[in-house]
Amino acid sequence: MRLAIYQMQAKAGDVGANLTSIEGSIRRAAAQGANLLVAPELALPGYGAGPAMAALAEAPDGASWRRLAAVSRETGVAILAGFAEKSGDTVYNSSLFVDGDEPPVVYRKSHLYGPYERGLFAAEKPSARIIEHAGIRFGMLICYDVEFPENVRRLAQAGAQAALVPTALPASDHADFIARRMIPVRAFENQLFVAYVNHCGADDRFAYAGLSGVAAPDGTLLAAAGNVVEELLIADLDPSAFRQAAEQNPYLADLRLG
Amino acid sequence: MRLAIYQMQAKAGDVGANLTSIEGSIRRAAAQGANLLVAPELALPGYGAGPAMAALAEAPDGASWRRLAAVSRETGVAILAGFAEKSGDTVYNSSLFVDGDEPPVVYRKSHLYGPYERGLFAAEKPSARIIEHAGIRFGMLICYDVEFPENVRRLAQAGAQAALVPTALPASDHADFIARRMIPVRAFENQLFVAYVNHCGADDRFAYAGLSGVAAPDGTLLAAAGNVVEELLIADLDPSAFRQAAEQNPYLADLRLG
Repeated sequence: MRLAIYQMQAKAGDVGANLTSIEGSIRRAAAQGANLLVAPELALPGYGAGPAMAALAEAPDGASWRRLAAVSRETGVAILAGFAEKSGDTVYNSSLFVDGDEPPVVYRKSHLYGPYERGLFAAEKPSARIIEHAGIRFGMLICYDVEFPENVRRLAQAGAQAALVPTALPASDHADFIARRMIPVRAFENQLFVAYVNHCGADDRFAYAGLSGVAAPDGTLLAAAGNVVEELLIADLDPSAFRQAAEQNPYLADLRLG
Repeated sequence: MRLAIYQMQAKAGDVGANLTSIEGSIRRAAAQGANLLVAPELALPGYGAGPAMAALAEAPDGASWRRLAAVSRETGVAILAGFAEKSGDTVYNSSLFVDGDEPPVVYRKSHLYGPYERGLFAAEKPSARIIEHAGIRFGMLICYDVEFPENVRRLAQAGAQAALVPTALPASDHADFIARRMIPVRAFENQLFVAYVNHCGADDRFAYAGLSGVAAPDGTLLAAAGNVVEELLIADLDPSAFRQAAEQNPYLADLRLG
């Protein structure tokens, strides 16, 4: 299974421009044989869209889905991208999984970070959302969700072989620690892959840390972006290549809770 | 609060020699103003004692405790050291906390690793064992226990400000990852200190990885040993120095389980 991750500089508030950017990345990923491309948290409206967020929110099968479904159908590449999801009067910080003409699948973020997110979005109850694609069972999380070991464990216990994590990690003293230490540990302690896909650059509200990457079950990085510019990275996910690490670190089998 | 950790080359099967080595480290730690010294997993019998383990097991208030209580009383330094605990016909892989004439406190390992440990010891049910000493609330774990995020979270939720983790991490492809990446992540994701205290050198059964260290709530290492020789390291644990990290990473407050 070939995964593409798109570290992206989104334009806050401009869904059309961001869709065009993602469509371009999908075509480049298709040329490299990818089965699935992951874009960052709120890639469609831009993480920094602020008070405009509610007006940019869409139903899962809205206009953005139609554009992404068309390019997915054309290229054969599935897409996971962050968007603001409108559900009645409620707005969620969600990811949209698009696979050609299949119905859209949505994951809603359970752990909102700080007053900015809590002012814009409702939090969903934590749950294990898993999709199977190209022979791999993918669990979904968004950004701050993955910093809680409980959320990755829940996916692993539900059978996920990889966690897909669109994110919007700001540049800070702790960004490198989270992207380069915590993410590989989440992979290792559950013996699964973790794709962590961030923004780069800045908008009027935030500067982003980049440092997107794909961690393997043995804690190594299969792909790692820098912290400044847009990058499209490719990683082949082959669980059988990490059987030895799984045998030496049987955390799921050995865990006792009482 | 000043913590000493003793990365030690134990002599498998020779409790007397190991006690003498620990007593020497306590006196050196006392000279540096330490309040507490932590020695590795099964420091008294030696991790590699094998089938002799049951014969080397002692009650918590046995002869080893009396020797350690005497040096604790003399120096004013408390001690946490791994030992084989005899309780009726059962043998546990335990840690013994000794503070002068106070009654001994014991923590029993809940997560035994592999057939060697499971052949020698009974596993205890996981629980939050916390002792307060020199103004800090210390939670106790042993080795493999700390590789499960659930076990450190349980301590943090019970109010621990630091986790004390005697260990016997063998040299392996994953030793550096566990000691230098996972341990700091356990500290960061719970915003507490983690002291990880390993053996060095080898016995007839195992070669040990060293790499003992003390991680701070912000994921930095306050002290870090090499991988070869005995080292006595000192770290000052001051939770108030990490208030900013705690405010930026409020994992315990933000965790939602349903």
